[in-house]
Amino acid sequence: MEKEIGELHLKDSGKTCELRAKIEEIQQTSGPTLFTLFDGTGSLVVKAFAGPGVRAFPELKEGSFARMHIMLHVYEGALEGELQKASLLPPKEATALLQQIQYSLAKKASPPTTKLLIHSPLLEQLKPRMVAFATAVRQAVMEARPIIMRHNADTDGYTAALALEQAIVPLIISHHDDEKAQWHYYRRSPSKAPSYEYGDALKDLATTLQDMARFGMKEPLIILADFGGTRDDLLSLKKVRAYGAKVLIVDHHEPGDVEKYADVFVNPHAVGGDSNNCTGMLATEIAHFINPKCQLFLFAAVAAHGDKVSGPEVDQYVAKAGELGFSEEFLKNLAECIDFDAHYLRFIESRGLVNDLLLSEPERQKQLVEMLITEITERRAAVLGAAKHYVEKVPMRNFIFGIVPIANVTIKSEYPAPGKAIGLLFDHLKEKQPVILFGYGPDFITIRSSYSGFDVNVFAKELEKAFPHALVCGGGHQVAGSVHFIEAALTEILAFSRKYIERLN
Amino acid sequence: MEKEIGELHLKDSGKTCELRAKIEEIQQTSGPTLFTLFDGTGSLVVKAFAGPGVRAFPELKEGSFARMHIMLHVYEGALEGELQKASLLPPKEATALLQQIQYSLAKKASPPTTKLLIHSPLLEQLKPRMVAFATAVRQAVMEARPIIMRHNADTDGYTAALALEQAIVPLIISHHDDEKAQWHYYRRSPSKAPSYEYGDALKDLATTLQDMARFGMKEPLIILADFGGTRDDLLSLKKVRAYGAKVLIVDHHEPGDVEKYADVFVNPHAVGGDSNNCTGMLATEIAHFINPKCQLFLFAAVAAHGDKVSGPEVDQYVAKAGELGFSEEFLKNLAECIDFDAHYLRFIESRGLVNDLLLSEPERQKQLVEMLITEITERRAAVLGAAKHYVEKVPMRNFIFGIVPIANVTIKSEYPAPGKAIGLLFDHLKEKQPVILFGYGPDFITIRSSYSGFDVNVFAKELEKAFPHALVCGGGHQVAGSVHFIEAALTEILAFSRKYIERLN
Amino acid sequence: MEKEIGELHLKDSGKTCELRAKIEEIQQTSGPTLFTLFDGTGSLVVKAFAGPGVRAFPELKEGSFARMHIMLHVYEGALEGELQKASLLPPKEATALLQQIQYSLAKKASPPTTKLLIHSPLLEQLKPRMVAFATAVRQAVMEARPIIMRHNADTDGYTAALALEQAIVPLIISHHDDEKAQWHYYRRSPSKAPSYEYGDALKDLATTLQDMARFGMKEPLIILADFGGTRDDLLSLKKVRAYGAKVLIVDHHEPGDVEKYADVFVNPHAVGGDSNNCTGMLATEIAHFINPKCQLFLFAAVAAHGDKVSGPEVDQYVAKAGELGFSEEFLKNLAECIDFDAHYLRFIESRGLVNDLLLSEPERQKQLVEMLITEITERRAAVLGAAKHYVEKVPMRNFIFGIVPIANVTIKSEYPAPGKAIGLLFDHLKEKQPVILFGYGPDFITIRSSYSGFDVNVFAKELEKAFPHALVCGGGHQVAGSVHFIEAALTEILAFSRKYIERLN
Repeated sequence: MEKEIGELHLKDSGKTCELRAKIEEIQQTSGPTLFTLFDGTGSLVVKAFAGPGVRAFPELKEGSFARMHIMLHVYEGALEGELQKASLLPPKEATALLQQIQYSLAKKASPPTTKLLIHSPLLEQLKPRMVAFATAVRQAVMEARPIIMRHNADTDGYTAALALEQAIVPLIISHHDDEKAQWHYYRRSPSKAPSYEYGDALKDLATTLQDMARFGMKEPLIILADFGGTRDDLLSLKKVRAYGAKVLIVDHHEPGDVEKYADVFVNPHAVGGDSNNCTGMLATEIAHFINPKCQLFLFAAVAAHGDKVSGPEVDQYVAKAGELGFSEEFLKNLAECIDFDAHYLRFIESRGLVNDLLLSEPERQKQLVEMLITEITERRAAVLGAAKHYVEKVPMRNFIFGIVPIANVTIKSEYPAPGKAIGLLFDHLKEKQPVILFGYGPDFITIRSSYSGFDVNVFAKELEKAFPHALVCGGGHQVAGSVHFIEAALTEILAFSRKYIERLN
Repeated sequence: MEKEIGELHLKDSGKTCELRAKIEEIQQTSGPTLFTLFDGTGSLVVKAFAGPGVRAFPELKEGSFARMHIMLHVYEGALEGELQKASLLPPKEATALLQQIQYSLAKKASPPTTKLLIHSPLLEQLKPRMVAFATAVRQAVMEARPIIMRHNADTDGYTAALALEQAIVPLIISHHDDEKAQWHYYRRSPSKAPSYEYGDALKDLATTLQDMARFGMKEPLIILADFGGTRDDLLSLKKVRAYGAKVLIVDHHEPGDVEKYADVFVNPHAVGGDSNNCTGMLATEIAHFINPKCQLFLFAAVAAHGDKVSGPEVDQYVAKAGELGFSEEFLKNLAECIDFDAHYLRFIESRGLVNDLLLSEPERQKQLVEMLITEITERRAAVLGAAKHYVEKVPMRNFIFGIVPIANVTIKSEYPAPGKAIGLLFDHLKEKQPVILFGYGPDFITIRSSYSGFDVNVFAKELEKAFPHALVCGGGHQVAGSVHFIEAALTEILAFSRKYIERLN
Repeated sequence: MEKEIGELHLKDSGKTCELRAKIEEIQQTSGPTLFTLFDGTGSLVVKAFAGPGVRAFPELKEGSFARMHIMLHVYEGALEGELQKASLLPPKEATALLQQIQYSLAKKASPPTTKLLIHSPLLEQLKPRMVAFATAVRQAVMEARPIIMRHNADTDGYTAALALEQAIVPLIISHHDDEKAQWHYYRRSPSKAPSYEYGDALKDLATTLQDMARFGMKEPLIILADFGGTRDDLLSLKKVRAYGAKVLIVDHHEPGDVEKYADVFVNPHAVGGDSNNCTGMLATEIAHFINPKCQLFLFAAVAAHGDKVSGPEVDQYVAKAGELGFSEEFLKNLAECIDFDAHYLRFIESRGLVNDLLLSEPERQKQLVEMLITEITERRAAVLGAAKHYVEKVPMRNFIFGIVPIANVTIKSEYPAPGKAIGLLFDHLKEKQPVILFGYGPDFITIRSSYSGFDVNVFAKELEKAFPHALVCGGGHQVAGSVHFIEAALTEILAFSRKYIERLN
């Protein structure tokens, strides 16, 4: 009796059924031949044995459409079949099945909901991209395509990646009807650098190529969360796409001109927005599209605290989190705890640790946060003390110019790192008057400003012009960012910086 | 016929038996239901199939006590059973079985011997803690709880960890009746830092959480050998315990106030002793309690040489090693070889390499030591030459004050590292007169002293007071230790140090 | 009916046969006893079950020769047997079989061809060593010995290792009749340092010892490609050989006196040649001996471009590559792309990425190269610009002396690294006049010279003599090389260098 693959259950083990399906993949083992069938409702692997290493049913090719008799059985907890009879479909019937498959795929891949969790004209504008993102993810799950998640290793990056993870992993388990499938078809790695570094892209490809050669895996879907859209990412994007990977980017940083190298590019700047809709917030909405059970207001609200963004969208997420019992202070503390653990986790993939901070029972969540927050507060105070001692404050007419050797006033590899420490010092200094703060290390200056007459990006461009030999790069927002250069240029660049700031006066 | 699990053997495969046991764990697979049974004498996994993914014997819960009929068979070399009939025990019988299990467990977990290998009033005082340590380890093995061993990457740390490993691994293999079990239930990692760094704790938790989610493993027993008892370890201890890990610490360094965060804390300082009973010696005794076959005098004697400790306990271990044919010179050379290999192994887990140095046949052991010792001697001489050239010797009335940029007179990442090199220079200088030696790097000073008027800990406290903004931390023994601080403070701290030492004069 | 193992096929599953073979290995599992048989034509694992964990056929020992009746079957896609009857061979028959096995082994291990791909008197002189290399590799494959390939992480090292890989992997697959065998019996790792560092040797041993203990693997055959023959490699060679590893070295760098620590040592210097026959070229010839299907002219030609070598051999490889459609410009670009990817792959083992650059279809190959080459060209131009700005050019009578803080004019961890950057600057400067170029970092000087009155090795020796306390080491060719020393000595060494060069004038 004819069946669809989607109708089959483990309990059909032992029965025979008739299927019409596309032959997606054929793998010849040293024993039987394996055929992966797909009919739009699901996938099934069926075996046929015509002698050890002998190709069974040679008339079936990859891409053929056929009618088949299959004896079902369970192997290692999953449903498999034995192919007993097969006949190619006549062309008309094949075309009809193809259309049916495409229609069915598109229908299944399209998000069950596309209603935003909050009211936001800006997010409505981004919605078509978010829907495309969710559709691509759902399709990858249905195609048994491995998903590689790469994310920024800060609070915003973690919440974004974990919101998507909360949506994706249950779909993978349910599609394969197998708890273990999540370890085969999904992988997440934090990245220390705020870009998809070429070395990371090569590492992903190395793993991918090995998985393809060794286990017959498909080309991956790569998700970049909270980075991926700047000139620094370009070569990596080109490289992974040359190997057949699809790339989805969700980010809120000022993008470069790389949109065309992503399959989907979700970034508020692309529709006239700014960075205040941070990645964790965007990912919370996409997660809801992928899997409507995910309504992760806490994730969005914590992300907003982590990145210190504000706006009408932030207010709504924070309010929703408040309704769930999370105070603003708790959100702030939780954001700092995630940042702290992220610092020490570095590039370790941990499927449980940060999730636990976000998803535990309230009592345990509180306990975990309390355990860390005292330590965090002490360390921040200590480093702030050091930074205050070593900052040189040059009084200007309209503002204070602060210069601090920030790399040398923090403890190597410990929390808080220079980028965080400069923020602490800035928050302290700006309370009294406008301030432009330069924290330098051997080959960088990280900058914070609350003086409206200064723009990080303008400064970065001037620097680049003045020191063409110094390999200057960087920038950021008007009020915060950093520049990098070669160590040999540090002294002259600091001297130039002082003069530059004086001229602003 | 009723049996105890401990009586069952692989050769009972094919037989049916009756058991009374506690249901420790129930796991529902997509195929059968798995029950882990425990009756105090052993564990057995039994399967029952009520349809794919259907819960068999729903009347059995985790924690139930039942009488069961089981058909035994061998699966992948281990004994398993098929559950054919089960009835819950009446309350009285259940209580009796529980008591029997608890009694049996306590009896099996308690060490077969608690007699020390040497005579030592101090170790007698530590014995209750050592017995508790051994009991906890034995219990973890019986509960199939994974054991994570973390140890200092020097000779003392290695010998301590390997002594315990020699005791633990055979118990694991015998408990599971499976050679392969040692790779699932035991893991050892050297740590470069002399503390349980937060990043290492997170890495252990990440692995643990994945093993729990993926393979149904239990919370681990974590053993910290030759570190773990100071303020620097506090946050890590709290964190792993928040995830249900048990922590056993065996150490001889001056402890901080963290004892209450360890399940067992073996440290001579806790009973009024000092650091002369080094960790390798303590672990040798504990290993003997865990597994009486382990009488590892060589380990203890080599550890003593590695840490250059002395005392009546050391003398006895060295004498016992001498009876086994190991000369003092060989012990010293062996200690240096372990230190050398430890330097290059860094954080690699190697189940065989250092073990081989300690446990090979005498002929091979000699050959391995000879191969390395010439190289080690040459490298030490070379670095000592460099250090002698660059040390500034300031003659004082009662001693010499030596200052050397030790990080810059050693070769990056090669043996000997700065901490070792300063020791070599100190041993050279102190021969002629008392000396206080400061070896500095960009953010640290490592100190050795043979002048009785100086105390590292007093100096560290003064420094902390004088430079509250420099994030000073550290200390050690009176005669040896180190201080760390931020790089920006180096110059002023060196200037302060000179004045401080002059005032001692 | 008596058979040889080499005659057996998967399709013999179900049949019984009679074999005469040596018992190579006996493994007692908790179930059956496993015997690994070898008769010179192939290996076969046969099982016998005498009760769980009971040793079957106790009269058979490792090393015995026996006549056996075996029932064949297929297990996980490979042929296995069940041992039904066995009788030890009488001594004479055993001796005859042993001789037959040895003869057969030697015959099978000896290369099917020993004809060079090009005409070269020098390579003819090296041929006996190359044949021994190929023989050892073929023998390792036949003995199911794991092969560990370590290679320099530059273009020459990669092409050399990958040429050998192209030859070895198909042999492994065919010997075991199993695609998956390549992942068990072959491993390749690039090494950042141009030597077999002791830490890498320990890592290899750690893995090896674990594989031996856990999976019953044999001692490995270690291949060192494009390094391995200097004093720096000595301790590593001794150590791995103490653990039973065989070591084959193919290299073209000036060797130290370590030849006797390698089982085979292929290096043109050993037969009076120089470095112009680079490792990729040598390995191309050896690959052809190992597996005559490998005629990898492209690999050799790209290697030559990577190492900028020249000579009659180079001309022939380049000409052959030209016949295949590869222009000199393309070879140069491809060499640079491999170098670029090698830089970012660091020590990642990637079975596919660099292979893909060398082995893709021409169209895809072109596309992959074009994608990278623009980026590479830009980065090289930028770093050359920086180096030109910061180089101090001291005009001498007969040449220019250039000094540049090369570590500080490149971007940390990005391409091009200092060693590459100094080459770019040198190529630029030498166009106008002879030049001696010193690029220094905190603990090294890297040197390039086109002035005939200067010799890197002579300079290195003078330096060593003048600064015995500076732990100077290094050297290279007359015209290119580097010296390393402790950081404390940098200033005085630079001052000495200036005077030394002035005296050359």
